[in-house]
Amino acid sequence: MLKGVPSIISPDLLKALAEMGHGDEIVLVDANFPAASNAKRLIRLDGVAMPELLQAVLQLIPLDPYVATPAVLMQVVDGDLPPAIWETYRRVIEAEAGGVVVSHIARADFYERSRAAYAVVATGEQSPYGNIVLKKGVVS
Amino acid sequence: MLKGVPSIISPDLLKALAEMGHGDEIVLVDANFPAASNAKRLIRLDGVAMPELLQAVLQLIPLDPYVATPAVLMQVVDGDLPPAIWETYRRVIEAEAGGVVVSHIARADFYERSRAAYAVVATGEQSPYGNIVLKKGVVS
Amino acid sequence: MLKGVPSIISPDLLKALAEMGHGDEIVLVDANFPAASNAKRLIRLDGVAMPELLQAVLQLIPLDPYVATPAVLMQVVDGDLPPAIWETYRRVIEAEAGGVVVSHIARADFYERSRAAYAVVATGEQSPYGNIVLKKGVVS
Amino acid sequence: MLKGVPSIISPDLLKALAEMGHGDEIVLVDANFPAASNAKRLIRLDGVAMPELLQAVLQLIPLDPYVATPAVLMQVVDGDLPPAIWETYRRVIEAEAGGVVVSHIARADFYERSRAAYAVVATGEQSPYGNIVLKKGVVS
Amino acid sequence: MLKGVPSIISPDLLKALAEMGHGDEIVLVDANFPAASNAKRLIRLDGVAMPELLQAVLQLIPLDPYVATPAVLMQVVDGDLPPAIWETYRRVIEAEAGGVVVSHIARADFYERSRAAYAVVATGEQSPYGNIVLKKGVVS
Amino acid sequence: MLKGVPSIISPDLLKALAEMGHGDEIVLVDANFPAASNAKRLIRLDGVAMPELLQAVLQLIPLDPYVATPAVLMQVVDGDLPPAIWETYRRVIEAEAGGVVVSHIARADFYERSRAAYAVVATGEQSPYGNIVLKKGVVS
Amino acid sequence: MLKGVPSIISPDLLKALAEMGHGDEIVLVDANFPAASNAKRLIRLDGVAMPELLQAVLQLIPLDPYVATPAVLMQVVDGDLPPAIWETYRRVIEAEAGGVVVSHIARADFYERSRAAYAVVATGEQSPYGNIVLKKGVVS
Amino acid sequence: MLKGVPSIISPDLLKALAEMGHGDEIVLVDANFPAASNAKRLIRLDGVAMPELLQAVLQLIPLDPYVATPAVLMQVVDGDLPPAIWETYRRVIEAEAGGVVVSHIARADFYERSRAAYAVVATGEQSPYGNIVLKKGVVS
Amino acid sequence: MLKGVPSIISPDLLKALAEMGHGDEIVLVDANFPAASNAKRLIRLDGVAMPELLQAVLQLIPLDPYVATPAVLMQVVDGDLPPAIWETYRRVIEAEAGGVVVSHIARADFYERSRAAYAVVATGEQSPYGNIVLKKGVVS
Amino acid sequence: MLKGVPSIISPDLLKALAEMGHGDEIVLVDANFPAASNAKRLIRLDGVAMPELLQAVLQLIPLDPYVATPAVLMQVVDGDLPPAIWETYRRVIEAEAGGVVVSHIARADFYERSRAAYAVVATGEQSPYGNIVLKKGVVS
Repeated sequence: MLKGVPSIISPDLLKALAEMGHGDEIVLVDANFPAASNAKRLIRLDGVAMPELLQAVLQLIPLDPYVATPAVLMQVVDGDLPPAIWETYRRVIEAEAGGVVVSHIARADFYERSRAAYAVVATGEQSPYGNIVLKKGVVS
Repeated sequence: MLKGVPSIISPDLLKALAEMGHGDEIVLVDANFPAASNAKRLIRLDGVAMPELLQAVLQLIPLDPYVATPAVLMQVVDGDLPPAIWETYRRVIEAEAGGVVVSHIARADFYERSRAAYAVVATGEQSPYGNIVLKKGVVS
Repeated sequence: MLKGVPSIISPDLLKALAEMGHGDEIVLVDANFPAASNAKRLIRLDGVAMPELLQAVLQLIPLDPYVATPAVLMQVVDGDLPPAIWETYRRVIEAEAGGVVVSHIARADFYERSRAAYAVVATGEQSPYGNIVLKKGVVS
Repeated sequence: MLKGVPSIISPDLLKALAEMGHGDEIVLVDANFPAASNAKRLIRLDGVAMPELLQAVLQLIPLDPYVATPAVLMQVVDGDLPPAIWETYRRVIEAEAGGVVVSHIARADFYERSRAAYAVVATGEQSPYGNIVLKKGVVS
Repeated sequence: MLKGVPSIISPDLLKALAEMGHGDEIVLVDANFPAASNAKRLIRLDGVAMPELLQAVLQLIPLDPYVATPAVLMQVVDGDLPPAIWETYRRVIEAEAGGVVVSHIARADFYERSRAAYAVVATGEQSPYGNIVLKKGVVS
Repeated sequence: MLKGVPSIISPDLLKALAEMGHGDEIVLVDANFPAASNAKRLIRLDGVAMPELLQAVLQLIPLDPYVATPAVLMQVVDGDLPPAIWETYRRVIEAEAGGVVVSHIARADFYERSRAAYAVVATGEQSPYGNIVLKKGVVS
Repeated sequence: MLKGVPSIISPDLLKALAEMGHGDEIVLVDANFPAASNAKRLIRLDGVAMPELLQAVLQLIPLDPYVATPAVLMQVVDGDLPPAIWETYRRVIEAEAGGVVVSHIARADFYERSRAAYAVVATGEQSPYGNIVLKKGVVS
Repeated sequence: MLKGVPSIISPDLLKALAEMGHGDEIVLVDANFPAASNAKRLIRLDGVAMPELLQAVLQLIPLDPYVATPAVLMQVVDGDLPPAIWETYRRVIEAEAGGVVVSHIARADFYERSRAAYAVVATGEQSPYGNIVLKKGVVS
Repeated sequence: MLKGVPSIISPDLLKALAEMGHGDEIVLVDANFPAASNAKRLIRLDGVAMPELLQAVLQLIPLDPYVATPAVLMQVVDGDLPPAIWETYRRVIEAEAGGVVVSHIARADFYERSRAAYAVVATGEQSPYGNIVLKKGVVS
Repeated sequence: MLKGVPSIISPDLLKALAEMGHGDEIVLVDANFPAASNAKRLIRLDGVAMPELLQAVLQLIPLDPYVATPAVLMQVVDGDLPPAIWETYRRVIEAEAGGVVVSHIARADFYERSRAAYAVVATGEQSPYGNIVLKKGVVS
C-alpha cells in the first residue's frame, strides 16, 4: 500500500498504469470475460468489483481528449439486455472525467481491441457486459 | 470462474491449494504484512477482505488434525490491542472446521513460518494483525 | 486434492479451467492424438480415461449456449468406423449438460481448432477418435 | 505412447527414469503427500493408481542390489494402522523384483529422503501411507 | 538406461518419441545436415551411426499406414550418386516395418519438412544423403 | 506518469514501494555506491538527485514508528568529513516525517543492510556519503 | 560511473549505444510517450530532462551523414503548437553535430519508427512533442 | 583454449561453427556494422581484426562447392572506394580455400543475408566494408 | 563437424572443453553412472564408447603437470573386480599423454568430485567402473 | 563503438565497468585461467592482449585510494619464474594511475578473490601469470 493511492490497485496494476503513455489502452473486464486468451499483459484482480476499480483507475490516469470516445463498452448480443451496471459506470466516469462520451463496439471487435491493449485487468465483477476500454490521456 | 468454487479464489490460488498436501501450510496476510519479502510463493489478492477469503479457503481444504493447533495468529506487540477481526476469524473457523484450536506466535516467528510456508496470500485487509497460518489436512 | 473437486483434475488443469472465460475452448484428446504439436498450452493426464475426465470437467464448467454446438468430435476418416466411446460421451454430456448438440468436423479442421484452443489435455484414452472440443459458457 | 513401454508412464517420467543412474532414487507418492514442497523434480500423474504405476516402473528399472533395502515405505504414525495397499505393493515387487526386502522409515525421514531424491511422482492414489522410495540398480 | 529400451536412445529422444502422436514426424539426419538451423526441436546424438539409430527408433514407434510413404529420403543433387547407405536403410525398414514404401523429395523440400517436424535428430553419420523422415503411426 | 504521483518515481520503483510491507527497508544510494553488488533488487535512477527522490519517496511511504531510528546513514570513514547533503536530508525528513530520529552505521554494516533490503535505488547523486536506509511503516 | 562518460548515461543505455552500428536508430522520448508499447528494447531514464540527455548522447555517437536527415521530430497534431523545446534541441544538435538537418514525420509514422528502432529511451521530460529519432553514423 | 584450435576462436564461436551444417552461413563483420540488429545469433569478438579471424575460421570450416560464390562482400555505396582490406581477404581465402570466387551484393541485401545467417561475428575491425559472408561446405 | 576436430566431440562438449582453464576438471562416465544428479553441467553422449571419447578429448586438452595424478578412476567396491577397460584407458592415456600417473578414489569421493567438476559427460559405455576424471593443464 | 571510448572495450564490459561502484573489483585474466568456473559474471575477450586491455580499463575507472594495494597479481608457484609481462603492467599502471602499489596473493587466494569479484574478463593473453585484480575507486 502507498499513501494517496487507492489500496485496491495492486503493485502490478500500478506499474502498468504508470508505464502507459498517451494513447495506450487498458481494458477492465468482468469475471466471465476470456481475459487470459485475449490479453498481451494480464493482471488479475479476482474478488474486486468493477465500479470501485473504475473509480480508482480514473483517479490515477486521465482519459484521452484527442479521440472522440476514450471509453468503450461491448455491445450486447441480440437477445441480451443492457446491464444495470452501465449506469453506474457512467456516473463514475462523469464524476472523475466529466464530459467524456462513451461508445460501444461489437463483441468480436472488443476481443480484438483487448488483445491490442497495453493490459487487461480481470476482475471478479459478476455483472454481464461489465467490460470497458479506457484510453489514457496526457498527464501534465 | 468454476461451478462450485468460490469466485474469490483466483486461478493461481486454486492451483496452490490443490498442489498442497498433508501438513503444507498457507499463510493469509493483511495489506501491511511484508509479504513479498517473506514468501517462497506469493499470491496477491489486493482488494479482497480476510473473512471472505478465510471462509472460501476453508471450503476447499481441511485443517490438519495431526497437530494441536492447525491455525495460528500473530501475537500483538506490546502496546497494541488484539484486533476485533480475530473474533470474526474464530466464528468462520468454528463454522467451517468446528473444534479447531487457534494458537499465537511472536511476530518474528510468524515471519519465519511465513517464509517456510508453501504459499503466502497478500490480501487487501486493512485490519492490523489480520494474518493467519493454516495447515492443510488429509482430503479423503 | 481439494474438497468438492474431482481428484482426477490436476492442479494445472484446474487452473486452466478457472482461467478460461466465456467462449474459450478446451480440447480433451486420446493417447494417440498429436497433442504436443497441436496445442498452445498442453496439459498431460497420461493414464486417465476420457469418460471420467469428461464427466469431471463438465462438473466444473458449463457449456456455451450462445453457439449451436459447444461440443465437437473429429469425423472418422474413410474406412474407419465410429468408435463405441462416442455413445458414452453422449450419455455423460446428457447427464451433465442436458440438451447439448454435438457436431463433427474433419480431421484437419480438428487439428487447427486444437491449436487455437486455450488448452489441450492429453489423456491415456486408448479408443481411436476419442477427442472432443468443449466451449465454456458463462458461470453465474 | 511407445511400443513396449507401459502407456501409464508419461514422457516426463520416462525421461527421468532414463536419466537416473545407479543409486539414484525415485519416490512414488499418494494423493495427500506434500509432493510439491518435498521434491527437487516433481512429476504429476493425477488420476493414476499406485499399484499399476509401481508395476510399470519396475518393468523399466532394476532395484539396487548394492544396498540392503532398495524399496522403503513410510512408518505409520501412532494411532494409524498399516494400510492394506502395502500387501499389494509386496506382491508387485515380488513379481517384478523377487527377493527384494522392503524397510520402513519415520515420516520426517521420508520427507527428507523425498527432497533428496532424483524425482517424486505424485499419483492419484487415495490410500493413506501409499508412498514408496525405489533405488535404481545397474542396467546391463 | 532402461530395461527393454535400446541404450542408444537418449532420455531427450525417448521423451520426444513418446510425446509424438499419430502423424507427427521425426527427422534423422547425417553429420553434415544443417540441423540447428532447420529444426523446431533439436536432439543431438553426435557419434551415433544412422543404421543403428534407425533400427532403435523403429523398435519404439510404428510408421503411419494412413499415408502412402511414411519414410522419405532426400533426392540426390545432380552429379551426386545415390549413397550405399540407402540399401541398409531399406533392409532395416523392411525388417522392422515390412511393406513400407520409401519416397524421395528435393533438397529444399526436405529442409522445409525438417523445419516442420516435431524433432530433428543430428547423428554422427558420415555418409552423404544419410537423412530420413519418419511419420509416426498409431500405437495400440 | 500518474496523477498525484511524483513523476520522478519510475514504474519499477513505484511497484517496489507498493509491494513493501511493514518493516521492509529500501536503500537510496549515491552514484558511487556499489549498488549492483549489494542489492537483492536493484532499481536504477541514474541522473536523479537524492533530495528530490527522498522527498518523493516519503510522500508515498510512512516511516516505521515501531523502531527507534527508521532512517539510517553511513558513518564517514576516518579522514572524511560529514557531507553537506545530510543537512538537506534532515530538512526533507523533518518536513515529510516530523520527529524521526536518524542514526548512523559503519560502512561494512551499511553494505550488509543494503544486501538485506527489499530494494536498492541507485541514483545519480554526486555527493559522497549520500546513502540512506528507510524502513517502511504501516499505511492506514 | 566512468571517467569521461556523462554520468546521466545509465549502464544499460551505454551498452545499447555501444552495440548500435552504422544506420541503427535510437529514439529519445518524453514522459507521456507510449514508450513501453512502441519499443523493441526499452530503457527508462525517469527524472532526466531531454536537453541534457540529447547532449550526452551526441557526445558518444556521431549522426549518420549517409542520409539527408539523421535527426527526426514528431509533427504536431492539428491544433497544437510547436513546443519551445525544439529550439533547444536545434542548439544542442548544432553545437554537437553542426550542419545536421532535422526533419518531421507524422505521429503514426513516428510510432512505427519507434517500434523499429534499436532502442527507445523514456525520459522524464514534461514538454509535449519532446521526442526525437537519432540515426547513428560511423565511428572512426 | 584447445590444442590445434586457433586461440582467437572463442568457445561460443567454436560451438556455432561446429553446429553449422552444409549450406549454413556465418557473417564476419567490422566494428561499425549494425550487428546486434541484424543477427539471429550474435557473437562478439571486439578487439579482433578480420584477417586473423578469417584465416582462423577457414582453418575450421570448408567453403561450399555447391554454389558459385561461397564468399560474399558488401558492394561499396556510391562515392566510397573499395577498401584495401579486400585484397588481404582474397589472399587469405586463396591460401586457405584456393579457387574460390568472391562476389558482391548491395548493402540492403547484405543486411538481409546477415539476418538470415546462422550467426554473425562482430569484430573490432576498423576498416570500412570489412564484412564477409561465408557458406559452409561438407566436412568429410 | 569441423576440420581437424574429432567428429565424436559434440558442439556443447567442444565449447565446455574450450571454456575450461588450467586446473578445471571434466569427468567422463559410463552409462550407469548417476550423471544427472552429480553434475553442475551435464553433457550427454549416449551411444558413444569411452575409449574413443577419451582419445578424442586428450587430443584437444593437455593434462595438468602441476598435480601428481591428473587422471583419476573410481575404486571398485568390495566384491567387484577391476574392469578390463582400465587397461584400454591406460594405453590411450600413455599414447596421448605419456608418463601420466593414474590414481583411484572411493565411490563416494568420486561422486563428490563429479559434482565439483566443470562438466560431466555421460556416455553409452556399458563397462562397469568406466568413469574417469581428467584435470586440464596449460595450453601453450 | 563510441566516441572517446577505447574500441577494445566490448559493450558488456563497458556496462559492467559502469555498474561497478566504489570498492567493487574486476579481474582481468590470461587465456589459461579457469575463468568460467571462478566468476560470478564472466566477460570473454578472446583474442585481446592484456596490456592493451589494462590500459583501456584504467582510462575508464580510477583505482581505490582507500586501500593499500588496489591492484593485485597472482604469486608464482614454486619453480616458476615471474613473467616479463608484469613489468609491462607496472608501466601501464604507473602511466594511468601513478603511485599505485601492486601486491601479490597466493594462487588459491586469487581464485577465491576472482569468484567474489563483480566481473572476470577472460582475455587471449598467452603469458603465464598474466592475471590482475583491480579495485575501483570513486569517480568524481
